[in-house]
Amino acid sequence: MTSYLLERAWVDGAVHDAVGVEVVDGRFTSVTPGAGGGEPVPGLTIPGLANAHSHAFHRVLRGRTQRGTGSFWTWRAQMYAVAERLDPDSYLRLATAVYREMAAAGITTVGEFHYLHHQPDGTPYDDPHVMGHALLQAADVAGIRIRLLDTCYLSSGFGEPPEGVQRRFSDGDADAWARRSSALPGSGAAIHSVRAVPDDQLATVVAAAAGRPLHVHLSEQPAENDACVAAYGATPTQLLADHGVLGPLTTAVHATHLTADDVHHLGSTRTHACFCPTTERDLGDGVGPSAALRDAGARLTLGSDSHAVIDLFEEMRAVELDERLATRRRGTWLTADLLDAATATGHASLGFPDAGAIAVGSRADLVTLDTTSPRTAGTGADEHTAVWAASAADVTSVMVDGRWLDLDRAAVGRDLDAVVAEVLR
Amino acid sequence: MTSYLLERAWVDGAVHDAVGVEVVDGRFTSVTPGAGGGEPVPGLTIPGLANAHSHAFHRVLRGRTQRGTGSFWTWRAQMYAVAERLDPDSYLRLATAVYREMAAAGITTVGEFHYLHHQPDGTPYDDPHVMGHALLQAADVAGIRIRLLDTCYLSSGFGEPPEGVQRRFSDGDADAWARRSSALPGSGAAIHSVRAVPDDQLATVVAAAAGRPLHVHLSEQPAENDACVAAYGATPTQLLADHGVLGPLTTAVHATHLTADDVHHLGSTRTHACFCPTTERDLGDGVGPSAALRDAGARLTLGSDSHAVIDLFEEMRAVELDERLATRRRGTWLTADLLDAATATGHASLGFPDAGAIAVGSRADLVTLDTTSPRTAGTGADEHTAVWAASAADVTSVMVDGRWLDLDRAAVGRDLDAVVAEVLR
Repeated sequence: MTSYLLERAWVDGAVHDAVGVEVVDGRFTSVTPGAGGGEPVPGLTIPGLANAHSHAFHRVLRGRTQRGTGSFWTWRAQMYAVAERLDPDSYLRLATAVYREMAAAGITTVGEFHYLHHQPDGTPYDDPHVMGHALLQAADVAGIRIRLLDTCYLSSGFGEPPEGVQRRFSDGDADAWARRSSALPGSGAAIHSVRAVPDDQLATVVAAAAGRPLHVHLSEQPAENDACVAAYGATPTQLLADHGVLGPLTTAVHATHLTADDVHHLGSTRTHACFCPTTERDLGDGVGPSAALRDAGARLTLGSDSHAVIDLFEEMRAVELDERLATRRRGTWLTADLLDAATATGHASLGFPDAGAIAVGSRADLVTLDTTSPRTAGTGADEHTAVWAASAADVTSVMVDGRWLDLDRAAVGRDLDAVVAEVLR
Repeated sequence: MTSYLLERAWVDGAVHDAVGVEVVDGRFTSVTPGAGGGEPVPGLTIPGLANAHSHAFHRVLRGRTQRGTGSFWTWRAQMYAVAERLDPDSYLRLATAVYREMAAAGITTVGEFHYLHHQPDGTPYDDPHVMGHALLQAADVAGIRIRLLDTCYLSSGFGEPPEGVQRRFSDGDADAWARRSSALPGSGAAIHSVRAVPDDQLATVVAAAAGRPLHVHLSEQPAENDACVAAYGATPTQLLADHGVLGPLTTAVHATHLTADDVHHLGSTRTHACFCPTTERDLGDGVGPSAALRDAGARLTLGSDSHAVIDLFEEMRAVELDERLATRRRGTWLTADLLDAATATGHASLGFPDAGAIAVGSRADLVTLDTTSPRTAGTGADEHTAVWAASAADVTSVMVDGRWLDLDRAAVGRDLDAVVAEVLR
């Protein structure tokens, strides 16, 4: 047993002073506000953050894809150019550096939406899971938890075969995807999108994903909605609902351009809605109906997605700030609800309902913030500091499953510089 | 003469390696890419940043006003409660800490929109400039340049006398404001808004401000536009245009809710438009027509305004990111244009046309960024890194008028913590 005395910590929906916690085998065995001794942890401690939607390799594009003009679709062409260059070795080095950046930002669990399965021409590697294993190993080296969301990607647009680098993504059909995917223990599942998985393949994916987290990109761009309606006479959400994709183990990523019926479907099935506001700003997606989704019953989670920035503090407040821009009202999302989205709900959406809270029985994840940095000083040193003032740079220590991580930011930067240069060479 | 060798620097619109600069009496006497020796300055160096719109005392509300629900107008009530508590001593301590936070964020010049002139009941202090002097002294201690924008504030709403704390703001009439203001050497001028300065007082302010920077809050909220049209039969912009307020020495702050005619007036007069995107998000103002203003001839500057965050890197990219949310297009604002807004144009709008560039004859301001932090690594170490990846925490050194500043962030945080607690006690 190891004991810690957290100077201040967010426990059971409120910030308490002097919280004693005891950790045995990576779980909290006691959590006692106002009592207890142990190793002091100065600062404000919150539960571990869950980054519910990541494409690790997009990190290469930070500061690069933002320059110049274009649209979501021109961005996608740039992203594909990077996807083409990766092999298992470079993917391991890149993902390791990115996951270490996440660790330094207080992210204790990542949901990696993984579709770079095969060689660039579509031929499987000798080990058909070598790319997925690179991601699992990267998380292990970085010390964070991962849910590999093994992604089914079969078609380019509606009814077109994969082209170019998309051949890397495709297993041919959902049965082949299910066979490969089921051999990866501990993985979750994903449907890339209604563009990439034909309607007659969806049921196979749903059956293979039973009992596991199932994620899907949904209605990020109006053009996808239009094409789906043209192909199937249904919105993407309706199509997913009709094929049993929605439900409490499912996460709809983005959920930006929805009809009232779509919102009802997502809410009534208790589907998670993973917003990625900094990416949605960057790609010009628009502002999704977060309040309507919540009020209908959907549960908010957060992701850094394209990694234009890796900072879940920024994502938390961006949900509310973008809502303010869209509605001119303040307070649609309150502090505690945003913190819940980034911690407990995010972890639950990745199949870790036993993480994301400083509570007896939970996995012992802790994220401590400096509340006296220029950004955070004078803001109350409470949950409002975390959501409204802090940045990833304010994270001073991170524990995952009872182990403190090494947050050597200088080393993280050096590794990122080196691997990005290698990938772009 | 002192010589520096900047590892990489943004000079004349491009990033160059190994830029030698020489400084005499606080100005650059030579700037030579690819040549020269001197004290090495590792990292990426950009010109000094101008924070063209600041209310120093709003910093107290960071992390506090964001909690809960409300609107721009409920936020204003919270802000007034802080305005009521300040005296010359606490204002000096608060502003010093805030300007030191700005210095650590690479801000070399602040435009302080100052209207806390008098005692809480409206009685002038024995020294009628004691509050303004506190701000000047604060900037001096922090080592940054200031343009005190001495603000005329006469009425509450349209035609109503000042009430409550607004009595602190009012000189009674524009003549009295002009007499007091003209005794403050080096100050710029400001019209708080068309709410706060009746139309028959505007010409007096304009005459007294001749040759000096003149700033004015403009159309931040639709309610102000509606009330102005009801009172005068003109939009705020039209009213300002009719009274000679607009022009190349004028800055319209926010400029969010404009008609096509308003845009034409602001553009054809070469008025500056100071956007404060992080505040405009926070207050739910909406997204202003930055592209239309630019295309009409107005010149973009940036401010951190309410100091929900003090980070001009965030403000730069937020202009484009919010435009993407509003239009679903990428690239309305290109990297170099955003960097110009935050440097040369911002300085010019504050009456410092000889600052904001690493160029012979310019004031010797330098801001150096760590391009190998977790945020900035792998992003190219060029101007795109500054605009799309960096944060205030990446600033490693700052020079103002040839002098390096002390960026002791731990001390800044301690001072902010102490003074905010004092003000809220």
